[in-house]
Amino acid sequence: MSEFSALRIDGTRLLQRLKDLGQFGALEGGGINRLALSDADRAGRDWTVGQMQALGMTVQVDAIGNVVATYAGTQDWLPVMTGSHIDTVRTGGLYDGNYGVMAGLEVVATLRDAGLRTCRPIQVAFFTNEEGARFQPDMLGSLVMVGGMPLAQALAVQAVDNGATLGDELSRIGYAGEMAADTPQVDSFVELHIEQGPVLEQQGVTIGVVEGVQGICWMEFTFAGSSNHAGTTPMALRHDAGICAMRVAAFIADLAQRYGDSQLGTVGAVQLKPNLINVIAAQAVMSVDLRNTDGDKLQQAQAEVLAFARQVAAENGVNFSHRQLADFAPVAFDAALVSSVEQHAKAQGLSTLRMPSGAGHDAQMLARICPTAMVFVPSAGGLSHNVREHTDALQLEQGANVLLQVLLERAQRA
Amino acid sequence: MSEFSALRIDGTRLLQRLKDLGQFGALEGGGINRLALSDADRAGRDWTVGQMQALGMTVQVDAIGNVVATYAGTQDWLPVMTGSHIDTVRTGGLYDGNYGVMAGLEVVATLRDAGLRTCRPIQVAFFTNEEGARFQPDMLGSLVMVGGMPLAQALAVQAVDNGATLGDELSRIGYAGEMAADTPQVDSFVELHIEQGPVLEQQGVTIGVVEGVQGICWMEFTFAGSSNHAGTTPMALRHDAGICAMRVAAFIADLAQRYGDSQLGTVGAVQLKPNLINVIAAQAVMSVDLRNTDGDKLQQAQAEVLAFARQVAAENGVNFSHRQLADFAPVAFDAALVSSVEQHAKAQGLSTLRMPSGAGHDAQMLARICPTAMVFVPSAGGLSHNVREHTDALQLEQGANVLLQVLLERAQRA
Repeated sequence: MSEFSALRIDGTRLLQRLKDLGQFGALEGGGINRLALSDADRAGRDWTVGQMQALGMTVQVDAIGNVVATYAGTQDWLPVMTGSHIDTVRTGGLYDGNYGVMAGLEVVATLRDAGLRTCRPIQVAFFTNEEGARFQPDMLGSLVMVGGMPLAQALAVQAVDNGATLGDELSRIGYAGEMAADTPQVDSFVELHIEQGPVLEQQGVTIGVVEGVQGICWMEFTFAGSSNHAGTTPMALRHDAGICAMRVAAFIADLAQRYGDSQLGTVGAVQLKPNLINVIAAQAVMSVDLRNTDGDKLQQAQAEVLAFARQVAAENGVNFSHRQLADFAPVAFDAALVSSVEQHAKAQGLSTLRMPSGAGHDAQMLARICPTAMVFVPSAGGLSHNVREHTDALQLEQGANVLLQVLLERAQRA
Repeated sequence: MSEFSALRIDGTRLLQRLKDLGQFGALEGGGINRLALSDADRAGRDWTVGQMQALGMTVQVDAIGNVVATYAGTQDWLPVMTGSHIDTVRTGGLYDGNYGVMAGLEVVATLRDAGLRTCRPIQVAFFTNEEGARFQPDMLGSLVMVGGMPLAQALAVQAVDNGATLGDELSRIGYAGEMAADTPQVDSFVELHIEQGPVLEQQGVTIGVVEGVQGICWMEFTFAGSSNHAGTTPMALRHDAGICAMRVAAFIADLAQRYGDSQLGTVGAVQLKPNLINVIAAQAVMSVDLRNTDGDKLQQAQAEVLAFARQVAAENGVNFSHRQLADFAPVAFDAALVSSVEQHAKAQGLSTLRMPSGAGHDAQMLARICPTAMVFVPSAGGLSHNVREHTDALQLEQGANVLLQVLLERAQRA
């Protein structure tokens, strides 16, 4: 096996592919806007498929537009899969998702250059609409692939920008594939990704060994009160929807502090109506984003926030309603595969930190059907979903070498 | 004087004038959009000037577009002035401002029908841009008239909707008048207005005897933090501009409760950037509206809010800046004129309540130069700046009769 363990990827070539892919949907001044199933996404997909074919891979597209390219193995065993996504948010960076897909291709290119094939086939996939910026929910392609949402329901989802259905958009860009979007027969799945947070950089660590994905609870709260004059309505006679939202936001921040480190709580979006300086808000719509690696604590946090929202609404004589926008239980990755990531990183002399993923990833969907793990590399300044998203070239190379060795070990094992 | 004290206005005719004026800028389904110096405002001004002329009044327009119509008296004494404004907010009602102007005309029409003239001339005025919905600050016309803002500065103010200057808009609609916008030589000023709050209705009182106007402090707070991923950024590493705004809003509500009844505090407008569910807000801009009848307490409230905002910004590692948008000290009306309002209301068998005005009014500007008072009638449900703004016809008539007698008493006094 020494011929495999001595292999190293070509960091320059990896970076070149990232830059080449970054041309599609490039924003002036930097960053990428490649929303799922847009014209830019089609161009990026076409280019990536071309790269896959040039590496001698067999490319298949399933009915939800997921693309799976296979580099044949020497045995008739289940393939080892890696991959991520190439759609971005409206003001995204070069690395989020793209890095995992390009690194997968780099692994194959490295094998090919060495004239080697593993026992198991190696598959590199990119999944449809991971970001959820144009169609909701996010991680939709991998969700459908593992049987988490019926295909027909997913195809009927409408784009938030122009109302087009996901099915029509897939057809329009030529990615309504013939392969059934069924549960894939794979040995394992490993996803390489930028951290999208500040922890690795803050701690001076190169490789994040991802043990699982936080549970996510997304809700939308709506408070409906009465619009009245801010100067003439005594405090006691108000039905102020705005102050309800504000108090809930403060409660969520306090709750996160009270629960401790693994609990996150964010109110990122608030919309008041009529949103005027001298008018008491008749309506407040706010987002609630709660995350925890502990599913029980997450449910408890959600219950507390809902109870407080109802209480503050009652105190202010305001109506309260809410919608659940996302509800993902925490995911624990495969212990053996997680250890493999850690060992290979250490074997390469890289510092490691076991950590949860704060963001959702396609890997959490694949974890439902096969042993799964993830590898993180640092994000400069913790920035992501931001045109200034950056990871140093050396770190990109180091992460891809960890991915290479983890895949090779798994692909050689019967 | 009995020929005067027996006079009563014609409630039907008053209501008809309000409805006729309400045609200009009428919204489908009810309510009025007659922003200052818009085409609708021009049409409403032209119609009102026509009504003034038809009543035999001399109409003058000053350089800031204030319109003053004079019904001549029998003596060469200073005139008694009444009036208000006819501009509205974007979704305004029939009565705010318009009621005071139409009631002034009804007073003159009543005198004219009776073939009577008072010793002092009676003036009915409407002032430019009272609402401040299109040009800031509000009460701009009366402010300039009493010397509170230089004319040139006022004419250069830009419209929030299209950036046109107030001076150009005045010329465009034909209301850049020839009369100097100088301090008027008047004996006194009495403004009749709807309450725009719920107090009179809640207490079952017909006439609000307005003793003065609350002090108003308007500020805009801007918190500037860092936009980061809501799932991957530990609470302790955040620079969340949004939570700063939310905590300040909660602090203001708590402060109003702590200070007691005369203190009002409102956060009516909040804008987060980027305003997405899973992104920590990089920027939060919020409005702060503080009011108190006690100027010292108002200053103390403002200082407390600013100190808290600075503290919460520092705790969150966020930058804080603020702009003062308005700063009006409380105004006390003329004690004798206030008593006159109360006495005439009681003489007409109407219930009265002494109260402050929560909203700003042109009367507070006129109070700088002459004895001034205001009369309030109830607002159904306390609604104002709302297309459903309403006052019963009988109450409109009763309020106008109080105005009539207060003006007559003053206009007959040497």
